[in-house]
Amino acid sequence: MLKIAIVGATGYTGLELLRILSCHPEVEITIVTSRKEAEKKVREIFPFEEKFGELVFEEPQPEKIAAKAELAFLCVPHGAAAEMAKALLERGLRVIDLSADFRLKDPLLYEEWYKVPHKAPELLNEAVYGLSEIYADRIKTARLVANPGCYPTASLLPLIPLLKARLISPEGLIIDAKSGVSGAGRSAKLRLIFCEVNEDFCAYNVAAHRHTPEIEQELSLAAGEKLRLNFTTHLIPMNRGILATIYATPLIFKEKTLYEALYDFYVQKTFVKVLPLGEFPHTAHVKGTNLCLIGLKLDSRTGKLIIVSAIDNLVKGASGQAIQNMNLMSGFLEDTALKRRALYP
Amino acid sequence: MLKIAIVGATGYTGLELLRILSCHPEVEITIVTSRKEAEKKVREIFPFEEKFGELVFEEPQPEKIAAKAELAFLCVPHGAAAEMAKALLERGLRVIDLSADFRLKDPLLYEEWYKVPHKAPELLNEAVYGLSEIYADRIKTARLVANPGCYPTASLLPLIPLLKARLISPEGLIIDAKSGVSGAGRSAKLRLIFCEVNEDFCAYNVAAHRHTPEIEQELSLAAGEKLRLNFTTHLIPMNRGILATIYATPLIFKEKTLYEALYDFYVQKTFVKVLPLGEFPHTAHVKGTNLCLIGLKLDSRTGKLIIVSAIDNLVKGASGQAIQNMNLMSGFLEDTALKRRALYP
Amino acid sequence: MLKIAIVGATGYTGLELLRILSCHPEVEITIVTSRKEAEKKVREIFPFEEKFGELVFEEPQPEKIAAKAELAFLCVPHGAAAEMAKALLERGLRVIDLSADFRLKDPLLYEEWYKVPHKAPELLNEAVYGLSEIYADRIKTARLVANPGCYPTASLLPLIPLLKARLISPEGLIIDAKSGVSGAGRSAKLRLIFCEVNEDFCAYNVAAHRHTPEIEQELSLAAGEKLRLNFTTHLIPMNRGILATIYATPLIFKEKTLYEALYDFYVQKTFVKVLPLGEFPHTAHVKGTNLCLIGLKLDSRTGKLIIVSAIDNLVKGASGQAIQNMNLMSGFLEDTALKRRALYP
Amino acid sequence: MLKIAIVGATGYTGLELLRILSCHPEVEITIVTSRKEAEKKVREIFPFEEKFGELVFEEPQPEKIAAKAELAFLCVPHGAAAEMAKALLERGLRVIDLSADFRLKDPLLYEEWYKVPHKAPELLNEAVYGLSEIYADRIKTARLVANPGCYPTASLLPLIPLLKARLISPEGLIIDAKSGVSGAGRSAKLRLIFCEVNEDFCAYNVAAHRHTPEIEQELSLAAGEKLRLNFTTHLIPMNRGILATIYATPLIFKEKTLYEALYDFYVQKTFVKVLPLGEFPHTAHVKGTNLCLIGLKLDSRTGKLIIVSAIDNLVKGASGQAIQNMNLMSGFLEDTALKRRALYP
Repeated sequence: MLKIAIVGATGYTGLELLRILSCHPEVEITIVTSRKEAEKKVREIFPFEEKFGELVFEEPQPEKIAAKAELAFLCVPHGAAAEMAKALLERGLRVIDLSADFRLKDPLLYEEWYKVPHKAPELLNEAVYGLSEIYADRIKTARLVANPGCYPTASLLPLIPLLKARLISPEGLIIDAKSGVSGAGRSAKLRLIFCEVNEDFCAYNVAAHRHTPEIEQELSLAAGEKLRLNFTTHLIPMNRGILATIYATPLIFKEKTLYEALYDFYVQKTFVKVLPLGEFPHTAHVKGTNLCLIGLKLDSRTGKLIIVSAIDNLVKGASGQAIQNMNLMSGFLEDTALKRRALYP
Repeated sequence: MLKIAIVGATGYTGLELLRILSCHPEVEITIVTSRKEAEKKVREIFPFEEKFGELVFEEPQPEKIAAKAELAFLCVPHGAAAEMAKALLERGLRVIDLSADFRLKDPLLYEEWYKVPHKAPELLNEAVYGLSEIYADRIKTARLVANPGCYPTASLLPLIPLLKARLISPEGLIIDAKSGVSGAGRSAKLRLIFCEVNEDFCAYNVAAHRHTPEIEQELSLAAGEKLRLNFTTHLIPMNRGILATIYATPLIFKEKTLYEALYDFYVQKTFVKVLPLGEFPHTAHVKGTNLCLIGLKLDSRTGKLIIVSAIDNLVKGASGQAIQNMNLMSGFLEDTALKRRALYP
Repeated sequence: MLKIAIVGATGYTGLELLRILSCHPEVEITIVTSRKEAEKKVREIFPFEEKFGELVFEEPQPEKIAAKAELAFLCVPHGAAAEMAKALLERGLRVIDLSADFRLKDPLLYEEWYKVPHKAPELLNEAVYGLSEIYADRIKTARLVANPGCYPTASLLPLIPLLKARLISPEGLIIDAKSGVSGAGRSAKLRLIFCEVNEDFCAYNVAAHRHTPEIEQELSLAAGEKLRLNFTTHLIPMNRGILATIYATPLIFKEKTLYEALYDFYVQKTFVKVLPLGEFPHTAHVKGTNLCLIGLKLDSRTGKLIIVSAIDNLVKGASGQAIQNMNLMSGFLEDTALKRRALYP
Repeated sequence: MLKIAIVGATGYTGLELLRILSCHPEVEITIVTSRKEAEKKVREIFPFEEKFGELVFEEPQPEKIAAKAELAFLCVPHGAAAEMAKALLERGLRVIDLSADFRLKDPLLYEEWYKVPHKAPELLNEAVYGLSEIYADRIKTARLVANPGCYPTASLLPLIPLLKARLISPEGLIIDAKSGVSGAGRSAKLRLIFCEVNEDFCAYNVAAHRHTPEIEQELSLAAGEKLRLNFTTHLIPMNRGILATIYATPLIFKEKTLYEALYDFYVQKTFVKVLPLGEFPHTAHVKGTNLCLIGLKLDSRTGKLIIVSAIDNLVKGASGQAIQNMNLMSGFLEDTALKRRALYP
């Protein structure tokens, strides 16, 4: 049994790790931490948590964590994550960081978008970007995995294969993305209270969302050249789900060719499904699952390729992909604990 | 008192006309029709309707309507609307058609998108496109107004001034639009029941929405050249509201110039508000109002202009604008019955 | 023009006063206060507020308020309200207090339920309980009105006439009440954020809700004897609306008699509608209105009378009734600014 | 592997059986039927269904079903279910009927409430009421299980032990129940479309809900005497979940005694949890699970016992309990495929 620490377990991603790992036969959770709720039982905060309800939140001290666990999931804010990762790696643990701290390879770019200097730049080179379907080989042997952002996961999975195959242009990409509210985290902010969100739809962080450089970094790698794109985010009045509507300029004007390239790329992958031509994904169809669903259409009137992808932001967009990465890093079957159908409706 | 008919009054646009007109001091509703609910009282269908609750739905016969009313709002499906409009115009009424029948000037384009031949092509030339802020002068003297679609209203209001002023390129426009569910109408369809819509977000009619040629027609007029664009629609799990996120290529790279052009165009208009730079609209801020709110930003990294507009699809996107047009046609103050603040939250 | 102060104008009841008063032809709002947002413009907090957007929040100092206004609405927390009311009455203003401070006649009962001593017990005798339909005569001449709680309004309106007429027993009353989330106010609490409320339903404050003694006080007065009852509250994942399901033991087992007693009591009242037998209210039918809708049925199998009432908690349950009371106190038509149909859907 | 038929698999209970059984290691689904969708693949109707997506809906012919399956779940309307059950039992299958057809022991009572004569009254005696925690012993050997209604499950689980132990009075029980919309089924009805349900709360079928006699039958058995009660149902604008608020008259006025009786009754049961005193359940805490959570409080002011119970109407209220019953009938571990934590948020 692999011994697991969840560092920062009172947010939605920590909670989701508990949910998924409760069905994982190869791991045991040996420590959960929370600065704010230290010394309380998990069930005092989450009364519905059964299997792990009796665990007691501990202060996030690296020594304690290292004494109890072999692999740690970090669900703490950026900044704090880098320091914790460093401390745990030094003590021999492997680390999957769900924060943004190790996603950007360039520490200056990190500082530009996150407004603080990077706390462990020496680890950036070693960190593997945890987009499981793309970097599985490197993830398998990684000590430190930078788990991708939710929006980047939904954006990169359809675009990377098309860019690599030179089927779409790296120029002029537009990603119009929409997310359920759990993406904003579990914290007491006025703008997040029910009546301020319910029955409303809005754009936010227009042309300024921090996931932009992360998407650009990975797409530039796929394209083999530096690209810039427009990325806009919106808030949907629902709990879970991201839908990204992507506009790309194809370099070949055959829908079938574009479709098959994407379909073939993922045909062997458990968690990415390219839908039949003419079908487009619903976020409700991935609720609670680790799936990414993709639909596409070549608009013959305008020549644009329209791609729509959907994930559950807390699963494939965070904790599910983190567990998929843990499975890869530990030699477990990639889909262990991740094989569920959507909870629909 | 102007005598009003509402033809097809059991849908959400008919219902919304009743709501708004209940505060209008210059009109009286003399007849409401419904094929399906004929001979029932309004309050049997809408028990919350007070002022007009005792009206009895009548069969939609042109003679009857003409005997009782001077101006008719048509809230019937396309096809039926054209026939009814013709019959009522012949009997001396003025007509505001909320269907799509008189929006497209080209009957062949109509047939291409709506899959039926136009039923009154001889009226297309006379019909005035009822985008109030743009065509007020012609609306004032119109006999037949084609009330714009909800998505076109949200899309056209920000784009027409910028295209007319040659500040953005007519090429490569992308309109990524999202709508609340009332836009799909009040009809018993499986895909519209609560559990199929709630906690879901999806794109629909991708690259095939019938509002596309309507938007292209009006933007081509504004640009002075024929343009094509990408227009994608999504369903938001909420009752009311449209948000359109628009990506345009500016021809001048000064945010201030672009902003002021739009701001100045609407500064005298009651119902279109260009928000201060840095602010973007929420659909909840226009709920129940006839407003269109617009925010914009020039993305200095990519050179794209991002515009976000919001309306209430049932008010400025349908019945509110129809009443604004009626006010213009009748010499009433343009904002009569339309001056309310949003119901928030 | 009556000069109005809104003290504590950044919550939902303050906001709702602004919305409704924007259509009131006989008043002007001369001062709005907020400790937290002092010196900001209303539109900085509520960008959708048009008519009053340029007003500047001021510190809630009694002198300032008294210098500018003749009548004040208090939308501040209990405790603070009593002190402010006292200070404003001393300076010659009339006061409508939307807090709980003057609802209970017995200061010890207040202290028992609110856990603080009453700050102005000497005013309790003078304060008039502002249930408009019941106490209109006294409200008309009041200096200080204690505006009823939202749950009490929905509970008392159907029960008072039946108790007064000795048609139901004062014993064994059960009020099972449910409220939309705006009833919890506009404040940043973890338990109120969207994902903690959406897709959930729960009971709260079971057998301990502070509106209990308020309901009991007024029903005891109606019954002419001291009564106790069960009152349970639940949270509905929606913005607005209260529905109360009430179980009473009738003293006469004729549905028609019970129905007519209630119907006749309210037949002349604008804002209370007893629905036809067999119909029950929906909260959506009162959204944004000052109405209370009531349906009832005598269960012939069990002999219980079941009453269902619905209000908009922010209108008839708070700001709408406050304005109705202001109208009564000021000799305006009782329904001025309050005559709107529900925003449906 | 036990061979399973799902008869009527296009509704929400059929769909939920597919979801849960996809994780069941001891069964295989060999046939799914649908009159309306016959010859279509499951994935054409439910594109998100993976494991069973390639199954083809067949006409519901007893011979076909009997040729392929050993146990059938009936998810067809009442009336149709009785006929199908009879036909399948005659052909040697065991049957779990999720309709109401075999719940009431008295065929005249059935006819009174369901307005049609019973189609197989000769089976009523044999049918076992499938409230798993109460009738496990009889379910284990049953050929025909009448799976309980959703509201009865939430109502009976807390009340049966208290009535059996003579701790509460059988008189004057009031059950005020609220349900998410999936309880109304998956069918195209105007009153179920999103905009008619969202942002609304209402009571329905007041004093006339068909689950009333089912609850009374089982509580009368527990009490050892015939009882009648008030049962009221309400619609919550959310997908899943039932919350029942129950008012009972205790026969002993010690909260601890009442609590412990209920706690002890269920302490060994996997799926019924009596919460610590002072805690009350949330429907979100059981979403997607087979749990029933119960909280209670003795109101010392009024002497009433208030019980709140919560279930997921599609799981413990329907398909989950059906599978629990199948597990009991087949000698599988009772919780096979049913051990998941809530999907929260």
